[in-house]
Amino acid sequence: MKRGFGSDNHSGICPEVLKAISDANINHALAYGDDEYCERVEALFKKHFGEQSSVYFVFNGTGANTLSIDAMCRSHEAVVCAESAHVNVDECGSVQRVVGCRLLTVATSDGKLTPQLVKTQLHGFGFEHHSQPKAITITQSTELGTLYTLEEIKALADLAHEYDMYLHVDGARLANAAVALGCTFKEMTTDLGVDVLSFGGTKNGLMIGEAVVFLNPELARDFKYRRKQALQLCSKMRFLAVQFEAYFNDDLWKRNAEHSNKMAQLLYNKVKDIPSLKVMYPVQANGVFVQLPREIWTELQKHYFFYDWDLDNDVVRWLCSFDTTEEDIEMFVDKLKQLTVNN
Amino acid sequence: MKRGFGSDNHSGICPEVLKAISDANINHALAYGDDEYCERVEALFKKHFGEQSSVYFVFNGTGANTLSIDAMCRSHEAVVCAESAHVNVDECGSVQRVVGCRLLTVATSDGKLTPQLVKTQLHGFGFEHHSQPKAITITQSTELGTLYTLEEIKALADLAHEYDMYLHVDGARLANAAVALGCTFKEMTTDLGVDVLSFGGTKNGLMIGEAVVFLNPELARDFKYRRKQALQLCSKMRFLAVQFEAYFNDDLWKRNAEHSNKMAQLLYNKVKDIPSLKVMYPVQANGVFVQLPREIWTELQKHYFFYDWDLDNDVVRWLCSFDTTEEDIEMFVDKLKQLTVNN
Amino acid sequence: MKRGFGSDNHSGICPEVLKAISDANINHALAYGDDEYCERVEALFKKHFGEQSSVYFVFNGTGANTLSIDAMCRSHEAVVCAESAHVNVDECGSVQRVVGCRLLTVATSDGKLTPQLVKTQLHGFGFEHHSQPKAITITQSTELGTLYTLEEIKALADLAHEYDMYLHVDGARLANAAVALGCTFKEMTTDLGVDVLSFGGTKNGLMIGEAVVFLNPELARDFKYRRKQALQLCSKMRFLAVQFEAYFNDDLWKRNAEHSNKMAQLLYNKVKDIPSLKVMYPVQANGVFVQLPREIWTELQKHYFFYDWDLDNDVVRWLCSFDTTEEDIEMFVDKLKQLTVNN
Amino acid sequence: MKRGFGSDNHSGICPEVLKAISDANINHALAYGDDEYCERVEALFKKHFGEQSSVYFVFNGTGANTLSIDAMCRSHEAVVCAESAHVNVDECGSVQRVVGCRLLTVATSDGKLTPQLVKTQLHGFGFEHHSQPKAITITQSTELGTLYTLEEIKALADLAHEYDMYLHVDGARLANAAVALGCTFKEMTTDLGVDVLSFGGTKNGLMIGEAVVFLNPELARDFKYRRKQALQLCSKMRFLAVQFEAYFNDDLWKRNAEHSNKMAQLLYNKVKDIPSLKVMYPVQANGVFVQLPREIWTELQKHYFFYDWDLDNDVVRWLCSFDTTEEDIEMFVDKLKQLTVNN
Repeated sequence: MKRGFGSDNHSGICPEVLKAISDANINHALAYGDDEYCERVEALFKKHFGEQSSVYFVFNGTGANTLSIDAMCRSHEAVVCAESAHVNVDECGSVQRVVGCRLLTVATSDGKLTPQLVKTQLHGFGFEHHSQPKAITITQSTELGTLYTLEEIKALADLAHEYDMYLHVDGARLANAAVALGCTFKEMTTDLGVDVLSFGGTKNGLMIGEAVVFLNPELARDFKYRRKQALQLCSKMRFLAVQFEAYFNDDLWKRNAEHSNKMAQLLYNKVKDIPSLKVMYPVQANGVFVQLPREIWTELQKHYFFYDWDLDNDVVRWLCSFDTTEEDIEMFVDKLKQLTVNN
Repeated sequence: MKRGFGSDNHSGICPEVLKAISDANINHALAYGDDEYCERVEALFKKHFGEQSSVYFVFNGTGANTLSIDAMCRSHEAVVCAESAHVNVDECGSVQRVVGCRLLTVATSDGKLTPQLVKTQLHGFGFEHHSQPKAITITQSTELGTLYTLEEIKALADLAHEYDMYLHVDGARLANAAVALGCTFKEMTTDLGVDVLSFGGTKNGLMIGEAVVFLNPELARDFKYRRKQALQLCSKMRFLAVQFEAYFNDDLWKRNAEHSNKMAQLLYNKVKDIPSLKVMYPVQANGVFVQLPREIWTELQKHYFFYDWDLDNDVVRWLCSFDTTEEDIEMFVDKLKQLTVNN
Repeated sequence: MKRGFGSDNHSGICPEVLKAISDANINHALAYGDDEYCERVEALFKKHFGEQSSVYFVFNGTGANTLSIDAMCRSHEAVVCAESAHVNVDECGSVQRVVGCRLLTVATSDGKLTPQLVKTQLHGFGFEHHSQPKAITITQSTELGTLYTLEEIKALADLAHEYDMYLHVDGARLANAAVALGCTFKEMTTDLGVDVLSFGGTKNGLMIGEAVVFLNPELARDFKYRRKQALQLCSKMRFLAVQFEAYFNDDLWKRNAEHSNKMAQLLYNKVKDIPSLKVMYPVQANGVFVQLPREIWTELQKHYFFYDWDLDNDVVRWLCSFDTTEEDIEMFVDKLKQLTVNN
Repeated sequence: MKRGFGSDNHSGICPEVLKAISDANINHALAYGDDEYCERVEALFKKHFGEQSSVYFVFNGTGANTLSIDAMCRSHEAVVCAESAHVNVDECGSVQRVVGCRLLTVATSDGKLTPQLVKTQLHGFGFEHHSQPKAITITQSTELGTLYTLEEIKALADLAHEYDMYLHVDGARLANAAVALGCTFKEMTTDLGVDVLSFGGTKNGLMIGEAVVFLNPELARDFKYRRKQALQLCSKMRFLAVQFEAYFNDDLWKRNAEHSNKMAQLLYNKVKDIPSLKVMYPVQANGVFVQLPREIWTELQKHYFFYDWDLDNDVVRWLCSFDTTEEDIEMFVDKLKQLTVNN
C-alpha cells in the first residue's frame, strides 16, 4: 500500500523491535510470562514507573483499556470519559460487554476532561438506581491530538481520589505526549497519582502488544486471572516482552515519538495556510485534524487512505508515524494543493 | 531456559515464520485486516478449507475457542464437551464470562466424545429451566494426545445436525492430527460437516496468532463485530496473516507436525518399557502421558519443567515440539532412567 | 407514610386487583405460566394487541425494559434512546450488564426522540469498531410527563424499519398516554409498527408485575429461556396474570389512568400561577415538573417526600396516582403556598 | 387444576400471608424498601438471624441464588456445588450469565456435599488458567428431599473458611429442614458459620418473594446496587416484606413446614410397600422420590401432574405442600395402587 497518513498503525515494525523478537527466538522459554525475558522487562517497567508498579502485557489497546476499567470498576459502577474517548466510540462496546458497566460521557471541545466537566457526572452516590461513579479515564495524547499538561492530569487524579475514585490513562500514544511535554513516563503518571495506565507501543513501532501498568498496587490483585479469562493472555509471552525492552532501550520510544511529532508539525506548517482548510485543534502530538471542503478530501482519498473524523463537519484526520518521511509529506501536500487549486 | 517437554508453546518461532514477518515489514498496510496480505492469506484458507469458508485471525487459542462458541450459542444455550476439554478446565471460565452459557461436560476415558456420550446431555429441549444444547465441541488432537478418526468426527457432526446443533473443533493441534491421519485439513473438517474450527498455529511454530475458520457460513454473520468487542481484533493484522501464509507454504505445518509427532513416538519408545512407568493413552500425536512414582517425577522436575496432569494419580504430561531434537530426548530419558534406577 | 406526590408507585394495590389475586388463590395451579389463568390472560392480551402478539409476564419495569432490549439486540449492537430515558439513567446499568450493549443517547428538550434526533446516531453501519444501531427505545408517556402523538410514534417506527432496526416502547405509564390521546393500546403500538412493548401496570394500581408484549413475533423466539436465565420467571405466575386480567376488565386501567391524569391537571392548575414557580413541561400525563427556589422545595420536602429531578436547575417532580384525592392536592398546595409566601 | 404433588409452588398463598398483603394496602409507602414495613421486617430478620445479619428481598429463588453467588464471587472465581443443585440444573445458566463464573460440580449419591467431595475441587489456587474456588453452595433441604445435619453444615463452613472461601445455603425449603431438625433458622445458619442464605418463602405459602440474608456482613457491601442492576429490585417492596412478617408471626413458617413434612411421611408410608415401587432417598423433608415402572408413572401422569426426575432410571418426584390434605394423598395413592395392580 502507498505510504500515507491514515493511521500510526499502518506503519510496520521498527527494526530494533523486530531484531529483539529475533534475538529472543532461541531455545525454549516458559509460556504465559513465567520466563526470564518477562522477568527482565518487568524490572525495566519498575525502573520507568516506580518500584510499586507492576506490568501485565496484553494484546491490544482495546484489551488494555477494557481490562484496566475491569480492574477499577464492577458492573454497577461507572467510568467518566470524554465523548470522543476511544473507549467510548471505537471499541464496539467492549466495556459494556466485558465489564458490564456504564460510561458517563461528557462533551468536550478538545477531547480533554476537566475537573469541572467531570463533576457534572459525580452525583447519585449511594442511590441504588444510579451507576456509582468509580473511575475517570483520559487519553494522553488525546484522540484529537491534544495534550493534557501535568497540572491538568494532577487535578483529575486529585479529584478522583477525593471521591474515592480511580484515574486511568489511555496511553496508546503516551510516548508522543512525553516527548511533547519533555517529561518522563513516571513524571506523567505515577508522580501525579494516576492509578492505572494503558501503555501503548503498537502505534509507535511495536508489532503487537500493549501493557497495563498498575501504579496503584491494590488494583492489580486479581488481574492475572481476569486477563486470562478475558482472552488476553499470550502464550509465547517473551515475544511481547522483548518488544518493550527494545522500546525502552536507547530511548527508541523517544526517538520514534519525537520523529512522528516533528512530522506532524511539518505537515501542519505546510497545510495551515491553505485556503479553505482549517486546522481544528492545536497540533500537540502526531495528529493533524483539518476541515476541508468535501469535494477535496473525498478526491484526496482516491490517492491516500485516511479517515473522515466528523462527517457532519467535514473534518478529517491525518496521523504521522515513526516512519513518516519528509518526502511522504511533500508528496501528500502537493497532491492536496493541486486539488485545492483545481477546486 | 533448558529445552524440555513442558509444552509445545515453550518453543519459539519457526524460522520460516519469522522470515515471513520480516518480509511483510515494508511500507504501510491498512490496519485491522483490510490489507493485501490478509486478502491473500484469506484466499489461501479458502483453498485449504473450501470456497464457502471464511477465516478470522485472533490472538490466542482461548480467543479462538471462546469466540467460536460465541458464534454458535447465545447465553441460554449450552455446549457439550469432554470434562478434559481445554475450554472447560484451562481457560479460567472464559466461556462462562464472555458467552455466558453453560458447558455440559461428559467424563471420558481418553478425552474423546462419542455420540453415545453426547446424547447423555441432549435433553430438556424446549424446557425453559434448562440451558438448550446447541453445540458440541471436540479437540483434535485431544488434550490427552489421542485422535478422533474421520468417521468419529463425521458421526458427531451428523449427531449435532440431527439435533439442530453445531460442531466445533478446537484445532490447537490440528496439524498433528492431520499428519497422523494422513489427511488434509479439509478432509478432517469441511468434508465431515464441521461448522467452525479453531485453527491453531502457535503450538506448531507460529509466534502469535490463531484463526477461527467458519465452514458453515451462517455462523460468520456477526463475527467481525464480536471479535472486536471481545478484544481480539489485531491492528497490524498483516503480521498475523503472513505467519499463516508461511505455515501453509511448502507444507511447513506438515513438516513441523510430522517432526513433533515423530519425536513423541521416539520418546514413547524410549520410555515405555521403563519399570514403574505406565503410558496412559495411545501416543497418537505429540504428547506422552505417563504415570510415575511421585518421588521420580518431582525429582525430574528439578531438572526439567513439565506439568503434573493428574495429581491424584501421579500422571504427568510431556509434549514434543517442532524443534525437539533426538538429543533432547536422549538427555531427558537418560535423566529419567537414572532417577528410576536410583529410586 | 403521609400520602403525597413522590411517585405513582408509592400508592398501593387497587382493590379490584387485590380481589383478583384473592379470587385466584384456590387449589393448585401449574407454576411458571403453564396454568389456565395465564392462558386466559394471554388471550386477553391478544385481544388488546392483536392476534400475532404474545405476552410474557415479568417482575418489574427494569426487567421488562432490559429483556425487551435483550430480545432486540446482541451485545455488539446498540439502542438509541433519549438521555432522560429511564433505561439510561435509572436502572443502574442493567442494559450494560445484562445485554452488554451500548445505549446511544440523545439530548432532548422534552424527553422525546424525533427521527431527526435519532438519525444523529445512525452511522457506522458495517464498521466493526462501532456498535451497530439496532433498536430505538422511547417512553410513552415520557419520564418528563410528555406524550408522543401517534404520528410521532409512527415516524419513529418507520425510521427504525427503514434501517432494519426495531422500535421498543417503555410503557410503564402507557395507560396514562392512552387515555390522554384517547386511543386504544393497539392503536398506539401494534398499528403503528412498534416491535416490542414494556407494558406497565405497577404504576397504575397493580401490586407487582409488568409485561413484555411482542408485537413482532420473530423477537419472541428465545424469550422464555432468556427471561428465566435473567431471573425474571415467576413461579406462582397466576398471581401476576390475574392482576392484568383485573386491569383490563371493566376498563380499570382506563379509570385509574384518567383519574391520575386528571389529578395532575388539577395540581397543575393550582400551582401554575404561583410566583417563583415555573412549570417545565406540558402536563400531558400524570406528572408535573416545576422549577422552584431551593429553599422552598427543600422546606416542602420536610413535609412531603418527592424527588429533586434536576438539582442543578432546582427542578422537582410531582406525580399523581390512581388514588390521589382532591384533598391530597389541596393540602399539598396549601403547604406550598404557605412556604412561598413566607419565603 | 386438580390438586396434586407436582410441586410445592403449585399451591397458592397461605391465608395469613394474603391477609398481611391486604392489611399493608393502605395509604402510601416509599418504594424500593425505604418504607416502615420493610424497616420492621428487617428488624424481624435480625431477630431470627442475629444482629450482624441483613436482609434483602428479591423476587424469586433464581434471583436469590444467583445474586448470593454474585456477592461471593467475581467471574474468575468458582462455586463448588452438587451436580443435582438447582443452581446447576434448573436455572438455565443464570449464574453463568449473570455472574459469569464457573460452577464446579460434584456427583453425589443423595444431593449432599461433604468436605471430602468438595476437596476434589479445591486445587489450582494461584494458577491463572483455572477458575479460583471461592464459594461452596449447598441446598437445605436438598433437591432430593434429604437433609444436612447441623454438624455436616458446620464442617462445610469450616472447610470453606479454611480455604478463604464462603458458604452459601440455598434455603428454598429451609423451613422444612428446620422443623425436621428441630432447630431455629439461626442455629442452622448463623451459628454454624454460613455466610449467605437464600431464604425461601414461596414454596411454603408466600405469594412472591424470597430473601437474601447476609450473615457475613462484608458480603452485603455492594448488594443494593447489584440487586437493582440485576433486575431484582421491587418497587412496592412493602408487599414483599409483609409476607415475611406474616411468615414469622405465630410460627406460620413452622406450622406450614411441619404440615408438608408430615404429609410427605404419610405419602411415604402409604407407598413404600407397593411392589415395583422403590423409594430412592430418605424422606426427610417434604419430597418423596420413587422409582416406578414407566408404564405406571406415565399413566399416573394422565391423572396427576408431576415431574419425571431421572428419565433414564424412571425416577419421579412427588412434593407435598402446606395445603396438602390427607384426602389428597389417599386419592393419589388409590389411583397409584389401582394402576400398579392393573399393570
